[in-house]
Amino acid sequence: MKKAIFSIALLHYPVYDKNRQVVNTAVTNLDIHDIARAARTFGAERYYIVTPVEEQQKLVKRVASHWVEGWGATYNPKRKLALELLSVKPTLDAVIEEMASCYGSKPVVVVTGAAGSNCSVTSAELAPRIAAGDESFLLLFGTGWGMTEEVFNSADLVLEPISGCGDYNHLSVRSAVSIYLDRLAGQR
Amino acid sequence: MKKAIFSIALLHYPVYDKNRQVVNTAVTNLDIHDIARAARTFGAERYYIVTPVEEQQKLVKRVASHWVEGWGATYNPKRKLALELLSVKPTLDAVIEEMASCYGSKPVVVVTGAAGSNCSVTSAELAPRIAAGDESFLLLFGTGWGMTEEVFNSADLVLEPISGCGDYNHLSVRSAVSIYLDRLAGQR
Repeated sequence: MKKAIFSIALLHYPVYDKNRQVVNTAVTNLDIHDIARAARTFGAERYYIVTPVEEQQKLVKRVASHWVEGWGATYNPKRKLALELLSVKPTLDAVIEEMASCYGSKPVVVVTGAAGSNCSVTSAELAPRIAAGDESFLLLFGTGWGMTEEVFNSADLVLEPISGCGDYNHLSVRSAVSIYLDRLAGQR
Repeated sequence: MKKAIFSIALLHYPVYDKNRQVVNTAVTNLDIHDIARAARTFGAERYYIVTPVEEQQKLVKRVASHWVEGWGATYNPKRKLALELLSVKPTLDAVIEEMASCYGSKPVVVVTGAAGSNCSVTSAELAPRIAAGDESFLLLFGTGWGMTEEVFNSADLVLEPISGCGDYNHLSVRSAVSIYLDRLAGQR
C-alpha cells in the first residue's frame, strides 16, 4: 500500500487583519508547537511556516533548533520528533516548489472554506484520496483574519468548514488544524 | 428533540509532573482561549478551569472579565461569547456538585485513555449517547503529564485515545480537546 503524502503550511503573509488590510502576522510559539505535534501525530511529511520576514524566520529556526538539537532534544525527545517536521519558507510558492521537487509534481493545494463559500470537497471525500497516496497534498491555513482572496482562489480544492452545534465557528487555527488532520488522516 | 448536555473541565490539580510527582500546574492564557472557543463552537454548557490556587483563580477571572465585560467585549464580541462559558472551580468535586445541582443528577464523568489502557467506550459509541440529551456529561482533561490515577480511576467512562498514523500520540491538550469535541459533537 502506498503512503499518504501531505504537508501543512501556516501562512503569515499574505493574510488579512481585522480591517481587511493585507499584513504579515507574527509567528507564535504555540502555533509552532501545537501544530508540529498534531502534524507528527497524523503523519504529515512537513509543517511549513511561511513568512517573508527574516527576523521571524530566524525566530522559528531558533525555537526549532532548541528542541531538535539543543537542550530540549534530551529533555523531551517526543517534542524533537514533532519539531523535526518544521520547515520555514519565505513564500507559499517556495513551499509548492519544494514539494514539486520532492514528489515529482505540484501538490494539490487545499484551503478551508468559511460557511457559505463554495466548498468543492468534504473531509469524507478527501480522506480516501489522500490515503490512496497517488497525489501529494498541501493543507493551507491562514493566520490573522485569514488568507487573502487571491491565495484562496488559487487553491485547487476548498474543504468544507468545521461545523459545531450552531452558527458559532471561531476556532483557533491550532484547533482547526487538529480537527482537519483528524478528519483527513485519523484512525477510528 | 432534547439538547445535548456536556461540559469540559481542564484539571490543573491533581496532575503529574514529568517525574510523576503530584503537582498544581499553571493556568495558561492559550488554554483559556482555545478551549473556550472550541467549547462554544461545539455547544458545551460550561468550560470549567479547575485549580485550588487562589492567585491562579484570580488570573483566570481577570482574563475572562477583560473579554466578557471589559474592553475586549466590544473589540471582539465573538471572543466574549466563548469566554462566557468559563467557570473557575477549586476542585473537581465542586464541578460535579454544580452540574448535579443544575441537571438534577451527577454528570457521567468521561476521561480519555492512553493507548493500551482499558477503554470502555469509543467516540462513535459515546456521540449518540450525548446527543440523546438524557444524561449530562463531563469531559475531563488533565494538564502537565496527565491527571492522577486516582482521578482517572474515579471516572465513569474511559474514552479511546486519538490515534494518528503510528505510535506517536503527543497532542497538546488544546488539540486533544478540539478533536474529541469534533468527534463527539461535530456535524459532518
